[in-house]
Amino acid sequence: MTALQTIADHLTARRQTVTCAESCTGGLLAGAFTSISGSSQWFHQSFVTYSNKAKEDRLGVLPATLLKHGAVSRETVAEMARGAKAVAQADYALSISGIAGPGGGGKGKPVGTVWFGLSTPAENIERTALFSGDRESIRQQAVGFALALLAEHLV
Amino acid sequence: MTALQTIADHLTARRQTVTCAESCTGGLLAGAFTSISGSSQWFHQSFVTYSNKAKEDRLGVLPATLLKHGAVSRETVAEMARGAKAVAQADYALSISGIAGPGGGGKGKPVGTVWFGLSTPAENIERTALFSGDRESIRQQAVGFALALLAEHLV
Repeated sequence: MTALQTIADHLTARRQTVTCAESCTGGLLAGAFTSISGSSQWFHQSFVTYSNKAKEDRLGVLPATLLKHGAVSRETVAEMARGAKAVAQADYALSISGIAGPGGGGKGKPVGTVWFGLSTPAENIERTALFSGDRESIRQQAVGFALALLAEHLV
Repeated sequence: MTALQTIADHLTARRQTVTCAESCTGGLLAGAFTSISGSSQWFHQSFVTYSNKAKEDRLGVLPATLLKHGAVSRETVAEMARGAKAVAQADYALSISGIAGPGGGGKGKPVGTVWFGLSTPAENIERTALFSGDRESIRQQAVGFALALLAEHLV
């Protein structure tokens, strides 16, 4: 079974919901959730927060966090996930912030660097990955990574 | 040139921004916008409002509108677009609400019925279309329709 179907089955059975806050994937993770017929039972809303200001305004990410650690950081995705979960009143929240390229890379954070946040009823988790490929490939790999992360931490 | 590239070029040149509020496409329109490298110049945030409550809470759609006309209606997409534009402080907003299927169709609103709202600096427009095909095909056709609608009404 795919990670997505595992998630759908679990959330449906437990009557739980998931939301997400996306930066570099720009809606593709939400698009994956809503590709499942019947997803309206467990997916009610999500946030595409591409700019720093949107991360602050919609999710409550602190300006100081963005200033100190940058948008692509453990600290930022942690605040994105917790903010999304609170605003959407969901049981789970996934967040994604990364550098899909081709521009935007820098020392220490090359193109393909993506941070993930996951907030569940039980724990808060952050992970990072470095993907290779073009912009679309990196975005799709990030969606897959996020779904796998959630599927592994369902409670 | 594709509608998407026309939009990207126009918004970049005019220093304008676009947002969107998606129901049945569930993030895929935002995903299309952000597939363009450099889209952060003209796309800052958007809303995936799948449930009625999310349409109310995030976009200010009136409960009475949803009750009287339903989520898939001219009145709802009009309020979604205007709400998204105001909350995101964008120059343009697109909204999409439809029945992607396979369930959810009813008399007068068969599967494939999609309503679109567009709010520009000059006008507010609503359109409807009836697409055929499976769930993913209907969602992709809706994204294409929305992009074409915006490309035709850039000011």
